[in-house]
Amino acid sequence: MSESAYAGAGVDTDRAGQALAGLVSVLTGIDPGRERRTVLGSGHYANILALDADTGIALSTDGVGSKVIIAEQLGRFDTVGIDCIAMNVNDIICVGAEPLALLDYIAVEQADPDMLREIAIGLKVGAELARIEIPGGELAQLPELIRGHPSPYGFDLVGACFGTIALDAVISGSRIEPGDAVIGIPSSGVHSNGLTLARSAFEDLSERPDELGGATVGETLLEPTTIYVRAVMDLIASDAIDVRGLAHITSGGLLNLLRLEAAVGYLIDAPLPRLPIFALIASRMTVEEAELLEVFNLGCGFCCVVPASDVDGALEVISAHHDGAALIGSVTDRCGMVELPYARLSGRKDSGFSAA
Amino acid sequence: MSESAYAGAGVDTDRAGQALAGLVSVLTGIDPGRERRTVLGSGHYANILALDADTGIALSTDGVGSKVIIAEQLGRFDTVGIDCIAMNVNDIICVGAEPLALLDYIAVEQADPDMLREIAIGLKVGAELARIEIPGGELAQLPELIRGHPSPYGFDLVGACFGTIALDAVISGSRIEPGDAVIGIPSSGVHSNGLTLARSAFEDLSERPDELGGATVGETLLEPTTIYVRAVMDLIASDAIDVRGLAHITSGGLLNLLRLEAAVGYLIDAPLPRLPIFALIASRMTVEEAELLEVFNLGCGFCCVVPASDVDGALEVISAHHDGAALIGSVTDRCGMVELPYARLSGRKDSGFSAA
Repeated sequence: MSESAYAGAGVDTDRAGQALAGLVSVLTGIDPGRERRTVLGSGHYANILALDADTGIALSTDGVGSKVIIAEQLGRFDTVGIDCIAMNVNDIICVGAEPLALLDYIAVEQADPDMLREIAIGLKVGAELARIEIPGGELAQLPELIRGHPSPYGFDLVGACFGTIALDAVISGSRIEPGDAVIGIPSSGVHSNGLTLARSAFEDLSERPDELGGATVGETLLEPTTIYVRAVMDLIASDAIDVRGLAHITSGGLLNLLRLEAAVGYLIDAPLPRLPIFALIASRMTVEEAELLEVFNLGCGFCCVVPASDVDGALEVISAHHDGAALIGSVTDRCGMVELPYARLSGRKDSGFSAA
Repeated sequence: MSESAYAGAGVDTDRAGQALAGLVSVLTGIDPGRERRTVLGSGHYANILALDADTGIALSTDGVGSKVIIAEQLGRFDTVGIDCIAMNVNDIICVGAEPLALLDYIAVEQADPDMLREIAIGLKVGAELARIEIPGGELAQLPELIRGHPSPYGFDLVGACFGTIALDAVISGSRIEPGDAVIGIPSSGVHSNGLTLARSAFEDLSERPDELGGATVGETLLEPTTIYVRAVMDLIASDAIDVRGLAHITSGGLLNLLRLEAAVGYLIDAPLPRLPIFALIASRMTVEEAELLEVFNLGCGFCCVVPASDVDGALEVISAHHDGAALIGSVTDRCGMVELPYARLSGRKDSGFSAA
């Protein structure tokens, strides 16, 4: 992705990848002085620690990223908490775990009681949608560290999430086979990835382009991330459906499917409809199709891999929670390749430690 | 603490307290749609989720705060990772739990590979001292959000830590009785609290005041936080010692003792020696003794409450890991009061969600 529009917008993904690799190589060398409890290799959405022979704890951390800047610019703080919950719980469920709790970390330029109350309201809405508790958190007042847009409303919002999973029920992707089906579940918009690039496409967040059906650019970009917990938990609980792979479509787009632990490829021949905001972003800036595909979810926020024979049953379960879920493709034996109608992408595999 | 030196230095603790109260009141109202698993009330260093009738998971999150600015100004990044581990594991052990793993969150102005590698080295050193793993993390490149000192080396460093505890072995403080003994374990310096105030006392981090015995101000302020895990785990494992209360002395100083769940007070008649850096800070600025006591650890980084008859045994265990631990006082029936040789402090009780 060198010389990309994203780099032009201030986020150097190549250098971040290199930096991340260096960081991970040190951290994976940690010797805790006892047997390691980590179950999964690096690369998945969440890792799992074995508590005993049967029970695992799934762990993941993620933040809202530069979406907070949209919230600051609109002066609307009651939805980013939903994004914070969503980005974390949607990762935890990818290994088949049930999310139980999240710790929030809020760094602020100044501790504005009204702003923080609004942030808390979003966290509460998200937590109840995801059926989790927030048993603790940290509020750090760091005026010299956090930049506001405008000042003094600067903040960073991050979560760390925990779930439980029976160790014999971990869904890593290892049982995925060529011929399996890929089901896509719609996103609500850009979610919490690619906001730096998305913002660079617009000069005025209060603009109401025809494409957005009456909404402003700012409102559309701030639309909270969809929470897929209930649909995925119901899918896993359904004895009739063999859930083989679960992928939260974040930064990296459908390439996220390659994070599943399976030596396969994916043919996405019937992608979900591209949401209007993505076409609008593409029309407002010089950006290659491949970069759009790698930065944004483009309308599909979550994928489930099931045997072809389980597609109808899976769609029935998912449709009780989300409109518009559909069969979007199939698993191939072309390892490491994601084939879309107008592009073939390959290779990128995340590190478990993620960079956003 | 109104009109305090700390407020003058840019951190408004009163407003933060008010903001935190609003935040917590919303978050504690979350209805997860199932029975809550949270074991402790808000206010303690860590919270505990019950996994089943026997096993609990202790959870806590904390960051390095403005200490990162010292690291940036000195261009030395290989120690703040130790602080990140320490601030988290020292909280987790306060409920008697054994820390197992930490997720790191690093927000950077730019992903500089050398800087991140150094940060990772500190995390590794800290993790091995605390005997934990780092099974995942998040690197967020947020150039518009993070301010550097100097740019582009701005970063924020935060951890979320998990430990395990048998539910019948939780140490909450509830068994503390008047007459019990308070043992103090030395800190290594300011640790990771009060750095904004500490920095405001000095114009030049490269100064070598006589009081610091050859070290610069910057080096002294950057001294990594002591990790108390091994001493406290040995103390808990010792059948001969009844460990009744454990308090990490962070922001709030010895008032942190009041976070323990006991309707008692504390008479600290023999505090540990005040480290030179604290006397130096006091000599360089107008700051009241009460504020010093409430912002800094002043030389005592951790306290253990045991029956008076167990003091010798406890000191023997602790001294295998830390020099200078000593009996510093006793538990009184003057509820909510911390009495020191030159000051009586009262009342402040943290919220479990902490503000730094």
